[in-house]
Amino acid sequence: PVGDRGPLSRQVRAAAGGERPPVLKTPKGTRDHAPAQAALRERLLSAVVSCFKRHGAAAIDTPVLELRETLVGKYGEGAKLIYELKDQGGELLALRYDLTVPFARYLAMNKITKMKRYHVAKVYRRDNPATTRGRYREFYQCDFDIAGQFDPMIPDAECLKIVHEILSDLQLGDFVIKVNDRRILNGVFAVCGVPESQFIPACCTVDKLDKVPWEEVRSEMVAEKGLSPEAADRIGEYVQLHGGLDLIEQLLQDPKLSQNKVAKEGLGDMKLLFEYLTLFGITGKISFDLSLARGLDYYTGVIFEAVLLQQDNKHLEEPLSIGSVAGGGRYDGLVGMFDAKGRKVPCVGVSIGIERIFSILEQRLEASEEKIRTTETQVLVASAQKKLLEERLKLISELWDAGIKAEMLYKKNPKLLNQLQYCEETGIPLVAIVGEQELKDGVVKLRIVATREEVNVRRESLVEEIRIRTSQC
Amino acid sequence: PVGDRGPLSRQVRAAAGGERPPVLKTPKGTRDHAPAQAALRERLLSAVVSCFKRHGAAAIDTPVLELRETLVGKYGEGAKLIYELKDQGGELLALRYDLTVPFARYLAMNKITKMKRYHVAKVYRRDNPATTRGRYREFYQCDFDIAGQFDPMIPDAECLKIVHEILSDLQLGDFVIKVNDRRILNGVFAVCGVPESQFIPACCTVDKLDKVPWEEVRSEMVAEKGLSPEAADRIGEYVQLHGGLDLIEQLLQDPKLSQNKVAKEGLGDMKLLFEYLTLFGITGKISFDLSLARGLDYYTGVIFEAVLLQQDNKHLEEPLSIGSVAGGGRYDGLVGMFDAKGRKVPCVGVSIGIERIFSILEQRLEASEEKIRTTETQVLVASAQKKLLEERLKLISELWDAGIKAEMLYKKNPKLLNQLQYCEETGIPLVAIVGEQELKDGVVKLRIVATREEVNVRRESLVEEIRIRTSQC
Repeated sequence: PVGDRGPLSRQVRAAAGGERPPVLKTPKGTRDHAPAQAALRERLLSAVVSCFKRHGAAAIDTPVLELRETLVGKYGEGAKLIYELKDQGGELLALRYDLTVPFARYLAMNKITKMKRYHVAKVYRRDNPATTRGRYREFYQCDFDIAGQFDPMIPDAECLKIVHEILSDLQLGDFVIKVNDRRILNGVFAVCGVPESQFIPACCTVDKLDKVPWEEVRSEMVAEKGLSPEAADRIGEYVQLHGGLDLIEQLLQDPKLSQNKVAKEGLGDMKLLFEYLTLFGITGKISFDLSLARGLDYYTGVIFEAVLLQQDNKHLEEPLSIGSVAGGGRYDGLVGMFDAKGRKVPCVGVSIGIERIFSILEQRLEASEEKIRTTETQVLVASAQKKLLEERLKLISELWDAGIKAEMLYKKNPKLLNQLQYCEETGIPLVAIVGEQELKDGVVKLRIVATREEVNVRRESLVEEIRIRTSQC
Repeated sequence: PVGDRGPLSRQVRAAAGGERPPVLKTPKGTRDHAPAQAALRERLLSAVVSCFKRHGAAAIDTPVLELRETLVGKYGEGAKLIYELKDQGGELLALRYDLTVPFARYLAMNKITKMKRYHVAKVYRRDNPATTRGRYREFYQCDFDIAGQFDPMIPDAECLKIVHEILSDLQLGDFVIKVNDRRILNGVFAVCGVPESQFIPACCTVDKLDKVPWEEVRSEMVAEKGLSPEAADRIGEYVQLHGGLDLIEQLLQDPKLSQNKVAKEGLGDMKLLFEYLTLFGITGKISFDLSLARGLDYYTGVIFEAVLLQQDNKHLEEPLSIGSVAGGGRYDGLVGMFDAKGRKVPCVGVSIGIERIFSILEQRLEASEEKIRTTETQVLVASAQKKLLEERLKLISELWDAGIKAEMLYKKNPKLLNQLQYCEETGIPLVAIVGEQELKDGVVKLRIVATREEVNVRRESLVEEIRIRTSQC
């Protein structure tokens, strides 16, 4: 019978002499980073972190594990994607879903009311992974946030400047940073006759406008969110608008919207933001886009999202659909949710979508056939004859102690050819060769791998010579 | 009744008008890193990583999550400390317990037979935390491992060299690296009449010799592990020995031990190891110690552990009991456990106990009252009069674009005193002051915070001047 198949196949395997072979994989939606990938990621993260440091942020770190209740009620629809730990006695735990909620918890717990911090770390979402587009269940977030009560729009403008700097530095191609404000959106919904309880669902629906045409969004509003066709049409007139300072002025004059208090506040701040961005010289890449809504519940003011513009990219064989590569916004209420008295700490922040950028760079690297070095070794300590292991060990030890990055083959009597080949494969630029004659003469033969040039260097000058040749000072 | 206390106190809270206040804590055995701690940790990790790179290791990364079955059966007694994830559908997952088993899984999965890698990342153990001694449930491991079939003891010697370099670099005070070999221990057990099935339990008991006197270890062997008093006494004669090359020679002549094949192999390799360590010039800190056993099941050859020596440390008010700060060994069978055909890849590696070192440095820092800078900001862009926000924004934007690390206060009209005070608090060395006169003259007033010296610098030379003053090139 069919029911016997399991045990039977186990019997077959057992008869074949094998136990169940070990399953060799990483969990769904996660991956290992081989050395070339780890090196590329290090390069990328260091570009992002140096921008955060340029803007005066301090690093903090929080645990990957949080109490479950810390995460509950902060993510709206996202909550179902939270990884929970098994109850093994003690506290109920979960893996962090982003770095923003732990930051808010950190501020409230330590009663900090002012802070500029960055945090680069992994977060976890039981999402449907689309790994080819750089969407994973375990992924890095690179967050920069400014907490504190300040004059309006100055920190917000800095967050946009940071996005602009990072995307420019990384040379990812043309991009646009869409900007909107939750207060403007809420104002639009209000003047179009949407009840306040429907603001968040309406927001989520509008957010799809970057992927599907207005007609589809409209039907979802009417059929699923229960808005009247008239309300939907009125919303449609607003949310399809995008532009710059001119559009802000136009909406400030809009007979309906200008009557709405929160919309007016949002528009006033948007105008101020554009003034600051003009001073920063970056408005060329900024679009005030009323369709931008952002998924997360906790935003209360300015929101933004950077997208790469599709282009004829010679580097890529098939153009990658990437979506947003950075996003963020203002969340003035989140810290207050952790305070027993609800004391608020206004915050604005940006998160760089490092995984998506990583997959672009990874594909580009593959296409270019450039080989990325995975180690930094400056010199291989080699021998030309047999029985020189002890001399190699003595020399390499001197080099390590002088701070030189050095390797040797772990063989007693390696062939010179194999040693030179190892340098070619791994990109080591220099070989320090010990031989009987060199030992007698008190020199080391230094070979430059790229040119095959060889020079005898006095042993006491070797460290200095290696430093100069690898231009490390 | 007593049983009402819970609900009653909830009623009281409800009557007081409050919901249950949010619990503000990190999970048991975990902690946040505030900026000063994060900066100290970054300094420490970078010292460790630069040593790993000096020895030619490439970085890899593996997920925090592993399939539960990947971890099962690898840790012996440790298995009960593994964090498991809740079954939310799909694969059964766990948090990694160390970086060694994921490394072995990575090698087997990718059929890699040769690799030198480092990995710095967090691991998880549901252990009883002793946070004052640097023992946490979430903690960093810094691992360096060499996989591959090589001539004996050359990679093993390099691992010990690495421990020596790192502990010397960090100036933690005097230390000793204890070395032993599982084969020697097994030989000792065999010649003392311990049945092979009891080798691992006997190992675990011997391992306690660094904490309790021999008499206690002996009673545990007899009372709990079922060894005969005679066998225990014979073991005692061996495991209380420690020394150097002389002890190795003595044991190689030992009438019983020299007849045991694995012990002889182990002793021969130990002799070779000491020869290599002599060439590295580090035998002064190495002790061949027969009581060293190490807890983990997977070791098969050389094992080692570095301990700091207690000293009159002026830095510490109460001397910290720290235990081992680095450890490792050879595990030739682990990769084979992941291979369907059991193909082995010999490995040897070292793990730096970064958390314990961190708590020493943290205490030392506190005691010294040295203030560690948490940001790298070079200059504060400030204004001397009101209505200069726009000018500050323009100037800071120029500085950021030139790669200068710059901050400004997020206020429209900050007082000069407050701006200067911010520099004192955060250690910013320079202030670039814009004022009406300076704007007219095309200069910026550069103030050196430490000396209060002020110089006018032409705007076009400002970037260069800041670079020189902060000696960044």
